[in-house]
Amino acid sequence: MPTGCATDRLPQAASTRTDIRNCSADPPYLPPTAINTTARLAALRGTMRAHSVHAYIVPSTDAHMSEYIAERDSRLGWLTGFTGSAGTAVVTWDKAALWTDSRYWTQAERQLDCNWELTPPSIGLWILEAVPVGANISLDPFLFSIDTWNSYSQALHGSGRTLLPIETNLVDQVWGDQRPPPASSEIYSLPAAFTGSSWQEKVAGIRQQMEQHVRRPTAVLLSGLEETAWLFNLRGNDIPYNPVFYSYTLLTNTSISLFVDEMRLSAAARQSLRAGCPGPLCVELQEYGQARAHLRRYAQGNVTVWLGTEYTTYGLYGVIPQEKLLEDSYSPVMLAKAVKNAKEQELLRAAHVRDAVAVIQYLLWLEKMVPQGQVDEFSGAQHIDMLRQAQEHNRGPSFQSISASGLNAALAHYRYGSAPVRAGGARAGSRDWAAGGWEDGTTDITRTMHWGVPTPLQKEAYTRVLMGNIDLSRLIFPPNTAGRVVESFARRALWNVGLNYGHGTGHGIGNFLSVHEWPVGFQSNNVPLMAGMFTSIEPGYYRDGEFGIRIEDVALVVEAQTKVPFLTFEVVSLVPYDRNLIDLSLLSLEQIRYLNAYYETIRARVGPELQRQRLEEEYRWLQRNTEPFPLGSAATATATLGTLALASLLSALLAGLQA
Amino acid sequence: MPTGCATDRLPQAASTRTDIRNCSADPPYLPPTAINTTARLAALRGTMRAHSVHAYIVPSTDAHMSEYIAERDSRLGWLTGFTGSAGTAVVTWDKAALWTDSRYWTQAERQLDCNWELTPPSIGLWILEAVPVGANISLDPFLFSIDTWNSYSQALHGSGRTLLPIETNLVDQVWGDQRPPPASSEIYSLPAAFTGSSWQEKVAGIRQQMEQHVRRPTAVLLSGLEETAWLFNLRGNDIPYNPVFYSYTLLTNTSISLFVDEMRLSAAARQSLRAGCPGPLCVELQEYGQARAHLRRYAQGNVTVWLGTEYTTYGLYGVIPQEKLLEDSYSPVMLAKAVKNAKEQELLRAAHVRDAVAVIQYLLWLEKMVPQGQVDEFSGAQHIDMLRQAQEHNRGPSFQSISASGLNAALAHYRYGSAPVRAGGARAGSRDWAAGGWEDGTTDITRTMHWGVPTPLQKEAYTRVLMGNIDLSRLIFPPNTAGRVVESFARRALWNVGLNYGHGTGHGIGNFLSVHEWPVGFQSNNVPLMAGMFTSIEPGYYRDGEFGIRIEDVALVVEAQTKVPFLTFEVVSLVPYDRNLIDLSLLSLEQIRYLNAYYETIRARVGPELQRQRLEEEYRWLQRNTEPFPLGSAATATATLGTLALASLLSALLAGLQA
Repeated sequence: MPTGCATDRLPQAASTRTDIRNCSADPPYLPPTAINTTARLAALRGTMRAHSVHAYIVPSTDAHMSEYIAERDSRLGWLTGFTGSAGTAVVTWDKAALWTDSRYWTQAERQLDCNWELTPPSIGLWILEAVPVGANISLDPFLFSIDTWNSYSQALHGSGRTLLPIETNLVDQVWGDQRPPPASSEIYSLPAAFTGSSWQEKVAGIRQQMEQHVRRPTAVLLSGLEETAWLFNLRGNDIPYNPVFYSYTLLTNTSISLFVDEMRLSAAARQSLRAGCPGPLCVELQEYGQARAHLRRYAQGNVTVWLGTEYTTYGLYGVIPQEKLLEDSYSPVMLAKAVKNAKEQELLRAAHVRDAVAVIQYLLWLEKMVPQGQVDEFSGAQHIDMLRQAQEHNRGPSFQSISASGLNAALAHYRYGSAPVRAGGARAGSRDWAAGGWEDGTTDITRTMHWGVPTPLQKEAYTRVLMGNIDLSRLIFPPNTAGRVVESFARRALWNVGLNYGHGTGHGIGNFLSVHEWPVGFQSNNVPLMAGMFTSIEPGYYRDGEFGIRIEDVALVVEAQTKVPFLTFEVVSLVPYDRNLIDLSLLSLEQIRYLNAYYETIRARVGPELQRQRLEEEYRWLQRNTEPFPLGSAATATATLGTLALASLLSALLAGLQA
Repeated sequence: MPTGCATDRLPQAASTRTDIRNCSADPPYLPPTAINTTARLAALRGTMRAHSVHAYIVPSTDAHMSEYIAERDSRLGWLTGFTGSAGTAVVTWDKAALWTDSRYWTQAERQLDCNWELTPPSIGLWILEAVPVGANISLDPFLFSIDTWNSYSQALHGSGRTLLPIETNLVDQVWGDQRPPPASSEIYSLPAAFTGSSWQEKVAGIRQQMEQHVRRPTAVLLSGLEETAWLFNLRGNDIPYNPVFYSYTLLTNTSISLFVDEMRLSAAARQSLRAGCPGPLCVELQEYGQARAHLRRYAQGNVTVWLGTEYTTYGLYGVIPQEKLLEDSYSPVMLAKAVKNAKEQELLRAAHVRDAVAVIQYLLWLEKMVPQGQVDEFSGAQHIDMLRQAQEHNRGPSFQSISASGLNAALAHYRYGSAPVRAGGARAGSRDWAAGGWEDGTTDITRTMHWGVPTPLQKEAYTRVLMGNIDLSRLIFPPNTAGRVVESFARRALWNVGLNYGHGTGHGIGNFLSVHEWPVGFQSNNVPLMAGMFTSIEPGYYRDGEFGIRIEDVALVVEAQTKVPFLTFEVVSLVPYDRNLIDLSLLSLEQIRYLNAYYETIRARVGPELQRQRLEEEYRWLQRNTEPFPLGSAATATATLGTLALASLLSALLAGLQA
């Protein structure tokens, strides 16, 4: 699954865009998908006037800077009609504007009505033009990161306008009864068999880091929902596909405060948390809404609070005096969670074996059904979910499964539609993402298949995506290397013939936690790779209106075979690639050797499980699809780039690109 | 030449270090190289008390954030004795401390006396412990970048201490007569033959960018010395090896103010600048010291000032109200300067042909002299400077030439000593950097040579450095790619056997301007690579106490042969590598093909110039050293990694690394 973050996305020219909407026509033209927001805006403006607020800023995040949010937190979506995952709206007494990044412009034009301007110049400048000197610009301090708050603050500094945090969310006020209710499902403890260590051990480890830190912090503040879930080995169901629950934690050197709806805790969970009471390993349960007040009181003492600035909101940060703050991009809990211990590694590896069984069942099923014309994208997605659920320890998908056929596969963020999956023709092929939540791990895999005769371009593009996946997977690199400086190895084979993809190359992944687990990955704000981290590796290629390719695996960072402590990857996803799409003559001998070794590993680890489950037909499919490739087919005369072998294909390819 | 910036340097453990000094002994032990700073510190403290200053912060930069500074600006060096290029000192009434990065720790211990603590924890924390509440912490606002100022400001915020800028530099006050006088040499115009366009055309281009910018800035402020030198096609001699002069420029939409010592301008320069007076292309000459006052007055109007935050000091930035600022990392002048137009590219290419002649003469000379034992590092450095000066258009070295033999070559920042250059033995070899300033360009090249029988480790390491140089040089990449995401291609061949180097991979270079020209290069704060930019490509490998290797070329970013507008490099340095150190069996066929094509280019471009200068022996040397390599020697059975072919060497290598 691609990372949702647009940070490293390739820029796209705004100038070439013409708005689908025509708001200057009489009557204005709007696509049928546009949402009428006139009444909502009028209600919000009423509330704004009552608060003497001239401009109100509404972001797309929740109070934990979560990547995925609950419907209840979809304030931006409700107010504007725009349902993309990233955006900011500003409403003044007579204007309204929405900013989002280029991948969502078309979607925004289809969803916004004429009340909304779309992506004017910078938010700060727009506000300065839209509101008079003396005006209040307001926002909910719990929905803005420290950095975003600072950027607004700086943009308005000295302008005669005031940035005014209001703790009552004005959108929630006008949303009223229509707003989905708070989550009420149970928050439960993970069985000990599926945790890397007890929560008491984790707390002890974090407290040790506090003691050893030169600044001697007295507390760590946890704002990320994954942080609290991981620390206490608790899980919930508050955000679709993400087994987390609304919470904050203040872990001090002598006490532990967990801010959560206590009534939702299972009896076992409450017992586990309270077992050490009273004492330093007693978890005091407090109301979720009390986090800020509690923190403010705590910060009056002789204390130092350690927090991660990337995902702490200004609402909490702002109550701690500057000199009592210890700021890092990520808290020590976030970093501890990212490095899986031996047991967690084994759990994640085991989850990938069962995941491979389900995916292999699915691929065999597709192979039989697609040529008969009996599969569409929706039924395909349902089938893989069903196959996973039939395996032990499954907890449902960790992401809405993506099944994209033919031209739909070219849309990087497409989920599924009703398009039939076809076997032949120039646009054949299917790209299937599937991410699974298992009690012992989280999985995330993409395979692209073709059941007919692929075009030379499809085959070349697929092979180059695979070469990128292989080149990054087998890279050896020194400790302290950031993902961003090595991700180009996954692109080079594509770059070499002028191709590329416009998304990140990978993201961290949790032990039955989020399918995108920060701060691991290949983007610019990810931390250096360390042994024990898991990341996806997922190059792709997308050809608008024609087809799309992605090859995604999850890999564990391990020590390399060099005698110095360098690192490399061990791929833990265990499903073979589509032989029908691989052009062996492009691969170097080393790449073929790597593939053959990987296939041997798949056979050794998945084969016995297929046999244990008496999946004989799947076992035979696996054997067939993991046959070693002949070394003689490699691009011997052309080494890595295969330029000569490519010459004939290349001209066709480049001609195609110009079309 | 390596980039001096430590941004991307590999971290090094401080814990393993024991101070060479023993300040707790009685009497304290100090190395003979330590400087007695007691009197200077006493004088500074007297001035501090007179200004009610409890702590004074002294940086290593000048008022233009220059990478290399004039002796007159070496306040840190004078005050502390430490002469490294990066550091910060803080002096309180009873303490003094110096911070520098790990590459300079040993040097600092050799140079500091016992008045100084070396690299305690963070500067902010140290100050908070060292001075009482109510104290003033002071600094010269012209010597601190905006970011550094902000970081101190934030560290002291709410602590009860005041950060107090004082425009009079307190070190200069106590330095007094001993301080070197201001530069007085002539500032001259470059001949039109050696400029890419007239200064009027450059000004028009920048003004056009101002008009087209959405914020409509009314002025651009130039703080970087290279910016003013480039814009007006002027050069000076104020900083050794850097043909720049002290200046600021405020370029508005209707006027041009150049802050400079007018008396130093050559008659021709003055005439050129004043030719358009009065009018929008008239350069008003103002005193250097008036820049701040002038800017303050200008900023009172209805204006917007565009500036580069990376190198503008707080002294200037602080007089512009926030809402009148247009902040980018680099000014439009810095970016325009970085992209060379067709004429500038030709000038730089031509400079590299003459540079190649001098370097080839030098290598031939070394080849003859070294086996006779008649060369030491100093005489070698002198000889290459002399050879360059004998060529047309030479303006002297653009950097102190580096000649490092045997174990000295392992020191990445070594210049030269008196070590003899030896031909044989395990530690043989020589690494020669030489950077030239030419009226038409600036050159920067490093070749590592061995005139005896290299050890297998030396040969393998050299070959892997070369493979990295080749792999980056022939990379094809999309527009808008940042250097930081591709520089690992220069490291992979080393990484693959657990080797690496601890410096950046390259830097921009000017047309007879600085040998390190920002913002081009492969570090994290460099801008994306664009066609027309020049950068060095310089991987290396250094083995402490034994030998060092660097292979450095300058390359131009050009459009690739792909039909989509992707980019690649054209290497413009034209000197062959040492055949004696290349293990062909490690190279892929593509790498050998690339080398052979590069050598053909060298023959075609340098051969005729050698013949024109009647350097027949050099011509024969060139032919000999650019013979095509046989393709049959490539690592055919092992593709790029050459793992099998390496097996025997590898064990020796790794054993060596463990030793």
